[in-house]
Amino acid sequence: MENFDFYAPTYFAFGQNKESEVGKLVKQFGGTKVLIHYGGGSVVKSGLLDRVKKALDAERIPYCELGGVMPNPRSGLVYQGIELCKKESIDFILAVGGGSTIDSSKAIAAGVVYDGDFWDFYEGKRIENALPIGTVLTIAAAGSEGSPDSVITKEEGMLKRGASGNAIRPKFSVLNPALTQTLPAYQTACGITDIIAHLYERYLTNTAEVECTDRLIEALIMTMVHEGPRVIENPNNYDARANIMWAGMVAHNNICGVGRSQDWTSHNLEHELSAEYDCAHGAGLAVVMPAVFTYTMSHDVKRFATIARRVWNVEEADDETAAKAGIEALKTYLKGIGMPLTFAELGAKKADIEKLAHTACYGDGSGSGFVYGFTTMSEEDVIKVYNLML
Amino acid sequence: MENFDFYAPTYFAFGQNKESEVGKLVKQFGGTKVLIHYGGGSVVKSGLLDRVKKALDAERIPYCELGGVMPNPRSGLVYQGIELCKKESIDFILAVGGGSTIDSSKAIAAGVVYDGDFWDFYEGKRIENALPIGTVLTIAAAGSEGSPDSVITKEEGMLKRGASGNAIRPKFSVLNPALTQTLPAYQTACGITDIIAHLYERYLTNTAEVECTDRLIEALIMTMVHEGPRVIENPNNYDARANIMWAGMVAHNNICGVGRSQDWTSHNLEHELSAEYDCAHGAGLAVVMPAVFTYTMSHDVKRFATIARRVWNVEEADDETAAKAGIEALKTYLKGIGMPLTFAELGAKKADIEKLAHTACYGDGSGSGFVYGFTTMSEEDVIKVYNLML
Repeated sequence: MENFDFYAPTYFAFGQNKESEVGKLVKQFGGTKVLIHYGGGSVVKSGLLDRVKKALDAERIPYCELGGVMPNPRSGLVYQGIELCKKESIDFILAVGGGSTIDSSKAIAAGVVYDGDFWDFYEGKRIENALPIGTVLTIAAAGSEGSPDSVITKEEGMLKRGASGNAIRPKFSVLNPALTQTLPAYQTACGITDIIAHLYERYLTNTAEVECTDRLIEALIMTMVHEGPRVIENPNNYDARANIMWAGMVAHNNICGVGRSQDWTSHNLEHELSAEYDCAHGAGLAVVMPAVFTYTMSHDVKRFATIARRVWNVEEADDETAAKAGIEALKTYLKGIGMPLTFAELGAKKADIEKLAHTACYGDGSGSGFVYGFTTMSEEDVIKVYNLML
Repeated sequence: MENFDFYAPTYFAFGQNKESEVGKLVKQFGGTKVLIHYGGGSVVKSGLLDRVKKALDAERIPYCELGGVMPNPRSGLVYQGIELCKKESIDFILAVGGGSTIDSSKAIAAGVVYDGDFWDFYEGKRIENALPIGTVLTIAAAGSEGSPDSVITKEEGMLKRGASGNAIRPKFSVLNPALTQTLPAYQTACGITDIIAHLYERYLTNTAEVECTDRLIEALIMTMVHEGPRVIENPNNYDARANIMWAGMVAHNNICGVGRSQDWTSHNLEHELSAEYDCAHGAGLAVVMPAVFTYTMSHDVKRFATIARRVWNVEEADDETAAKAGIEALKTYLKGIGMPLTFAELGAKKADIEKLAHTACYGDGSGSGFVYGFTTMSEEDVIKVYNLML
């Protein structure tokens, strides 16, 4: 196991009606004037936004609002949010929504207290300071509610990039599984797929002897295997929603990923797809993961065979056969919850593959020419992987 | 799943030589004058205490020392520590040792800022304020390095009682697995047993539909099953030590125990044994757990059968047979790492059973007459359970 530091000081208020505690929580973490940041109409229509405002009113905490966050959140709205916060002397950002809204809130929080262009952080500058953030989560997916990460897409060139820093870890997150019961099945399944990707990408390590985190990751994938189909079948299954929601947070706050190398290849290759075609991130991952795993399997067949046996109940004695059967089982599972498995289903085009691979390897010119992770992939490798998705 | 709040803001510095960062960490968490609290000679002899002092010196942080913490830490030393801290205007407690030293430090930290008798907290008063605490852990066992709990024994009447509160969660904990390599096999095994008890006692729940935390707990027990014998066989196996150390923290910071009822029956019945006979807590648990599980198995045979199949690879189709085989497998495992399984091996006496059961149920007079947990046990039940340990 490698040396590591782990610090995850987010306060989680989990369960039915927990959003009613938002005013109290903002106060507890020092907020005196709040920006409520959210996405489209669903949090308005469901009445959630009103309940959140009521909870702030009850503590006499003033607020202003900025809606309009889109999936694959854009830099344009972040600049608007930063300007609004400065003008209104906001000292606390409250994200009401999913990963996109939380990531956009994190970008605003870091940008408000920074003299330069917030995009610097998404080009590699570490985030050291930010306004405090709270979240009311409406979908189990990105894990952003407990993570120090944020992903934003820059409109100019449609570059999708990540930034990180403990300063943007939420101070608190309200996780009420009941809020996710109204999600369409497709979005629910996209969230489940994102969580599974966060787990596989931690599992695919080059660090030896990491039994504890191996077992924790397997446990969380098994939870998704059990609960995923149940929640697709019955969207109102509160307990299944609750297990997925807690698993989604634990999957990505990194308690199960410490002390080991990780593999963000699938996320990196997917980011090119959702940036180019604006497809759902989870759907993109469902297409990307099996291709990446098939291409990299030979790098450590034993590891793929182990997860196949422990998680997918594969009984094949031969490691390579078992490993392949495990990837097939993942595909069957993803298809079963309604996810796409091919480029065409995403609206992605074979003709774009060279461009996608080039952007994945070189970004806007600052990239190294390689995608680093479980294996090191050259542009040629990445082209081959995208071709496996056809 | 039940509603819950979860907040675990301890900073973990994990790995080789991490104790060299102690000065920097104390500073980061606001300490300006430190009490170094420790146990017997091992931290002195090993040179660890000197390394810790050097790290504080490097940051020019003054300190004073209080050694002498014993296993099953006593109230007497806590009173001394409180007096010393007040006299020396200490504002940070640094525990260098295992669970006993950390628990003693927590009691001192709470007592210094409290006008009354610190023992009030161990009679049920919630701890709301305390001096900040840091730890340098020397044994994977109690999980106190990441928990809000403390257990102290009052010399008068040898009462062993617990207190709790987020204020006594360590601000930071240094976890260097190499520091545990010099532990005698017996102490290592006692620590392993304590961790396993923390997991079983979270597993035995009356809450339905808790797949995520069920799976996480199973994952951690499987880690102990794998790594326990390896570390007993080769005390210098750093990676096995590391996996056990992280598992021990995760087992007890409660991330795997949220949203479900828990069962602290084994700990409660064991506390009477270690208070009366001053046996090692882990050794006591090895004797107590199989008896408690055998006695309560019929309350939810399915749950015991599930853990038997998932963790202990029991293949029996009949639930009751499987459940029993799982408890037998646990006993075989505990015996294999050198733990006792009977009253006699602990130095405990059949003649004392009625007294032990009475204290377990009534404490110093404030108890209810019952031990609450997975089942509700009357004094008569507790007597029967102690008799199963003969």
